[in-house]
Amino acid sequence: MCQLLCMNCVTPTDITFSFTGFSAHGGKTAQHADGFGLAFFEDKACRLFIDDASSATSPIAELVKRYPIKSKNVIAHIRKATQGSIGLENTHPFMRELWGRHWIFALNGDLQEFQPRLTGLYHPVGDTDSEAAFCMLLQGLRKRFPCSQTPLPELFHTIEEITREISRYGIFNFLLSNGQALFAFCSTNLYYIVRQWPFSIARLLDTEVEIDFSQTNVENDRVSVIATMPLTSNETWTQFEAGQLLMFQDGRPVRESMIEIPEAVKKRNDEQQAPVGV
Amino acid sequence: MCQLLCMNCVTPTDITFSFTGFSAHGGKTAQHADGFGLAFFEDKACRLFIDDASSATSPIAELVKRYPIKSKNVIAHIRKATQGSIGLENTHPFMRELWGRHWIFALNGDLQEFQPRLTGLYHPVGDTDSEAAFCMLLQGLRKRFPCSQTPLPELFHTIEEITREISRYGIFNFLLSNGQALFAFCSTNLYYIVRQWPFSIARLLDTEVEIDFSQTNVENDRVSVIATMPLTSNETWTQFEAGQLLMFQDGRPVRESMIEIPEAVKKRNDEQQAPVGV
Repeated sequence: MCQLLCMNCVTPTDITFSFTGFSAHGGKTAQHADGFGLAFFEDKACRLFIDDASSATSPIAELVKRYPIKSKNVIAHIRKATQGSIGLENTHPFMRELWGRHWIFALNGDLQEFQPRLTGLYHPVGDTDSEAAFCMLLQGLRKRFPCSQTPLPELFHTIEEITREISRYGIFNFLLSNGQALFAFCSTNLYYIVRQWPFSIARLLDTEVEIDFSQTNVENDRVSVIATMPLTSNETWTQFEAGQLLMFQDGRPVRESMIEIPEAVKKRNDEQQAPVGV
Repeated sequence: MCQLLCMNCVTPTDITFSFTGFSAHGGKTAQHADGFGLAFFEDKACRLFIDDASSATSPIAELVKRYPIKSKNVIAHIRKATQGSIGLENTHPFMRELWGRHWIFALNGDLQEFQPRLTGLYHPVGDTDSEAAFCMLLQGLRKRFPCSQTPLPELFHTIEEITREISRYGIFNFLLSNGQALFAFCSTNLYYIVRQWPFSIARLLDTEVEIDFSQTNVENDRVSVIATMPLTSNETWTQFEAGQLLMFQDGRPVRESMIEIPEAVKKRNDEQQAPVGV
């Protein structure tokens, strides 16, 4: 399966440090070499970089490591194909527009016999379960609020309802953002850390790199990093519970909901789950 | 106003040479420094690079010049803002999905009092006349063919109808592609060249760079390059007529239509037209 990484911050921050460790999983320290992508929000708009090459070797990944793009919401993904061929059209994150904002979605999962009824408002370009799930999510949001976006608490509630429906089909760890907030759902595997004052040194697990965040951040900065597996060796990451949906804003979780995953699905997810981050 | 560049080819080709000359206009040899973007199709999917920095200085532009991404349809744009602030949300090209394909649009124009009735199917993220025109185009296509894409000749005809409607509002030179074909419309300024066997040397206007295409191409290759102004000093570029809509496939124009632009609009366009490429 794939690996997820995202960041939600109170002030625009670059993801260079975390992406350096994360991108090494793309064919260097782990077998996730079937493409990668990153999306950086700037208010309502978004820069999306995708490549069907490995993140360990791609010149686009090199650019992202060298060019510190600052953003309050970033979503990244490295792919190990389970459904859908290797190709640009199947490379996460996926982007669509809804209510005059770009929306970004990435999945670490495997949905079984998932064939949502899509009306054509959002149509998958590739052939992954992930993009079909994204289309179903946006179609559900638009059906509930046809004209314009509702406030975030109500939006969270609707995302929760649609997530409950899709998570019955199998492993469904996802990241979703519209640039205002970041929604993260865990059905099997997801961790997060909130970095805030007083900042300290963080050491990447997979490389020799370390950074002293107290030198690069000020008192009011706050950053949440969410990933399939912890990225650093000397920090305490919080593991999501299976079924936990969190909304992050201003660098911290602000809203939470637990979605009950039926026992049969839980059992199947546990059996199917491929080891990640090795 | 802005400048346009695009390429349509029979076999995937990189745009490195043309983009080198074109990107120099972005704040180096011309005053189009308010952002730039490029979209590279790979079948139905698309890589989109946008930056609100100048193409003459942006690290993303540097990457594109050094990393020869091969594609059969490429659309590029450098911006000199007329409507809408400088920012990522107003940076061309714009991307949306229709009928399970990505669509890309870029404009060199200035539409006056253009406020199309958008039903919300496609909603602008930024505040440019360009993105509103793109949303109107896609809304019109979807209204005419709600479920799936019609064959290209009929699609061309519908694009022609919508273009006729929008071009009444002012200067409307645009490039549009869904990865299968490239549609180019000229209301004031657009040139193209078809490079094919026997290939020869091309010399960029704005830099010292030249390339011998006979060394890099084979007999069956064919490439059309379309731009706001000719990019080379030693080749003969064909100027579009005002009102000419062309569809390019396999590196050559395959379908043509003339759209009559009302005299009053023509006169206003001529008066308004900013010098380009200087």
